[in-house]
Amino acid sequence: MPEPQAQAARPRVLIVGCGFGGLEAARALRHAEVDVTLVDRANHHLFQPLLYQVATAGLSAPAIAAPVRYLFRRQRNVTTLMGEVTGIDAAQRVAQLADGGRLPYDHLIVAAGATHSYFGRDEWAAHAPGLKTLDDAFEIRRRILGAFEAAECEEDEARRAAWLTFVVIGGGPTGVEMAGTLAEIARHTLPGEFRRIDPASARIVLLEGTSRVLQAMPETLSESARAQLQRLGVEVRTGARVTAIDAQGLDVQPADGEAYRLASRCVVWAAGVAASPLGRQLAAATGAEVDRAGRVIVQPDLSLPGHPEISVIGDLAAAQSHAPGQPPKPVPGVSPGAKQMGRVAAANILRRLRGEPAQAFRYRDYGNLATIGRHSAVVDLATPAGPVRFSGLLAWQFWLFAHIWFLIGFRNRLVVLIDWAWAYWSFDRYARVVAPGRAQPPTR
Amino acid sequence: MPEPQAQAARPRVLIVGCGFGGLEAARALRHAEVDVTLVDRANHHLFQPLLYQVATAGLSAPAIAAPVRYLFRRQRNVTTLMGEVTGIDAAQRVAQLADGGRLPYDHLIVAAGATHSYFGRDEWAAHAPGLKTLDDAFEIRRRILGAFEAAECEEDEARRAAWLTFVVIGGGPTGVEMAGTLAEIARHTLPGEFRRIDPASARIVLLEGTSRVLQAMPETLSESARAQLQRLGVEVRTGARVTAIDAQGLDVQPADGEAYRLASRCVVWAAGVAASPLGRQLAAATGAEVDRAGRVIVQPDLSLPGHPEISVIGDLAAAQSHAPGQPPKPVPGVSPGAKQMGRVAAANILRRLRGEPAQAFRYRDYGNLATIGRHSAVVDLATPAGPVRFSGLLAWQFWLFAHIWFLIGFRNRLVVLIDWAWAYWSFDRYARVVAPGRAQPPTR
Repeated sequence: MPEPQAQAARPRVLIVGCGFGGLEAARALRHAEVDVTLVDRANHHLFQPLLYQVATAGLSAPAIAAPVRYLFRRQRNVTTLMGEVTGIDAAQRVAQLADGGRLPYDHLIVAAGATHSYFGRDEWAAHAPGLKTLDDAFEIRRRILGAFEAAECEEDEARRAAWLTFVVIGGGPTGVEMAGTLAEIARHTLPGEFRRIDPASARIVLLEGTSRVLQAMPETLSESARAQLQRLGVEVRTGARVTAIDAQGLDVQPADGEAYRLASRCVVWAAGVAASPLGRQLAAATGAEVDRAGRVIVQPDLSLPGHPEISVIGDLAAAQSHAPGQPPKPVPGVSPGAKQMGRVAAANILRRLRGEPAQAFRYRDYGNLATIGRHSAVVDLATPAGPVRFSGLLAWQFWLFAHIWFLIGFRNRLVVLIDWAWAYWSFDRYARVVAPGRAQPPTR
Repeated sequence: MPEPQAQAARPRVLIVGCGFGGLEAARALRHAEVDVTLVDRANHHLFQPLLYQVATAGLSAPAIAAPVRYLFRRQRNVTTLMGEVTGIDAAQRVAQLADGGRLPYDHLIVAAGATHSYFGRDEWAAHAPGLKTLDDAFEIRRRILGAFEAAECEEDEARRAAWLTFVVIGGGPTGVEMAGTLAEIARHTLPGEFRRIDPASARIVLLEGTSRVLQAMPETLSESARAQLQRLGVEVRTGARVTAIDAQGLDVQPADGEAYRLASRCVVWAAGVAASPLGRQLAAATGAEVDRAGRVIVQPDLSLPGHPEISVIGDLAAAQSHAPGQPPKPVPGVSPGAKQMGRVAAANILRRLRGEPAQAFRYRDYGNLATIGRHSAVVDLATPAGPVRFSGLLAWQFWLFAHIWFLIGFRNRLVVLIDWAWAYWSFDRYARVVAPGRAQPPTR
């Protein structure tokens, strides 16, 4: 047993959040002589790129969620804690927890991520849930399956049509995946199971405020994605701005034309993200600045001005990529960016401990891919020989294997593979479970 | 297309509840010239015998829940509706739904099942959740895993001990399974993953009011179950009556000795069941009687006095088995009993339609089995040559294959088999996911 004193002398690294960035930072410290504490509100790392599959009943939640302490069971310098960090005391070098606990640190990596943003219209949240956590996914699953159930019970034609109209707001990757999968469910999974309605008659509407879906992709792939969505039966409406959402539907203002109303009982929000509120708190505590989305503006090495011991990474950071001989470029909010930042933040801690200067962050862009539905995807690879772009079946297969490859943990890979193989051949969706409220003791 | 008139003339069979009894009744009507409506609060049939596995994170929810309308997609005379029946108007022959809807019937099978009973102490529900629905299982999973997480964060020794004390109230099959599996989690799954606590030091206490666990089993098997539990590290306390439960623990009155207190932050209720409140409503509406547990007392053919068109089956029925030449015997509240009642209730509808007299219900007892943990179970088979009783590894293997065999739907069988094979070899528990609250939009 080492002396307790010797233990206490090891630098304490606190990592807040175990998304892609936090997880990668902790892993990068596996051989370091430091004590790492990893704290998160949940007990699991969530593989967010497949969260839409949980929301659409294609995967069960445990398939894309790995218990954090299981992932680090063999990395003995990591202590995992479940708790919510509500503030940072930068002067005292202590993180405050919601339950009153305090976690002192010598080095801090904040990777608290992002949540939905309703652009100041928070009252829309009740009518158009977003998709960031497992509970969000369960809520959306409940609404989607519940809408078909309600339609089967509904006698009134107009009301039935509203139950069978599904609107996805936002044409980014999540919105495109949700709309495409909803079309699959309506056209392939459910037909034959209902007696009074035809699920295939459901309308799936994808609303995007700008002129094209998948803005982060080149224009040709956006066009291909639109065509693939339309083939699946999705109504794609670009240049469509949402002006109101309530329990019965939403108001839409097209760029060219008159405002109209869509009666819908199931609306999914995939339009905006905002940084975790911890960003503003951290900025106030350190004198750092935040951008309009609430992301903390970081130094080239991902640390905060005047606080080399604090790094901010992932979706919470407004970071720039610094390639030699090129002007700085903003880092996109994608998982490879978060992982790369996690590795650099960890490496910079080790550099500081050795008395070396910190390294500036450089984002390596390997490309971009998005799935749309069965046999439908778009891929934009960045290779040394220039971009490689393709779409359709091959892109879909590429997407599939990339996602299984990057899924954390062998166990989950196997389960997801089986679930998908089953879904592919049977058109069934395995996780179609909607729980009623908790059973109450009989009232008597 | 048949004439709408011809359609309407087919007798309408309404089945309330799609547990084992309701599901079996609907299946037994698959070749009948009747229109079956199957209504349930949930959209899935739940394989309750494995619900404790969901609660203890060994299985994901979809593995033991099959969407009802998927199960009946090819049985064209079944219409599945998701809704809660709150009352029966026996004079008008209409079932009332919670949302105001009404379902008329010519024949009614009520299979609404049971829920927990706290013996008049409903305030205990908040501190000691029972295990009947998926939401119950999620709640218990959250408490079990959350208790280990809280213990890892807790500085105070006594409070840490309370987080690491797990109490299961009730020594029936569910209580025995829960206690055995909790011991497995503490001794085999979690060690190595925590840095501040030793999960293996957790206390698992099983409290039973009577003198032995598994009352429905012969005494030798109860003794074997107790020994197997103790080998797994469970403290088995029989003759122990619970007199109070609160958020910090519970008060216990042993049959011989002084009352004492157990400080525990995770208590599971497996002690009592009560029939669905629909039983009393139905009794009031038809003049039938209920027993002390709220179960409806049925005629030998499972119908209600003066209402041959209404049958009550499963856990909601106080039914007798009528074997020729033997006095009537109460039917135990087990799934084979519910299934057999479902088949007889369906057959009696067809008999009535043909003008034949209804058949009295006879329960065929094939035996009883209960699992305790890895390699631990007890089996009591009723064979024509007399009872066959065994326990230990062989009993566990028998239990395992029986449960996979009876699990509804090939898809689920495959998944459960894989999940179990994984859990067996790795000691890992796959579904260790605790979701935090839904992400809120940032407050600003």
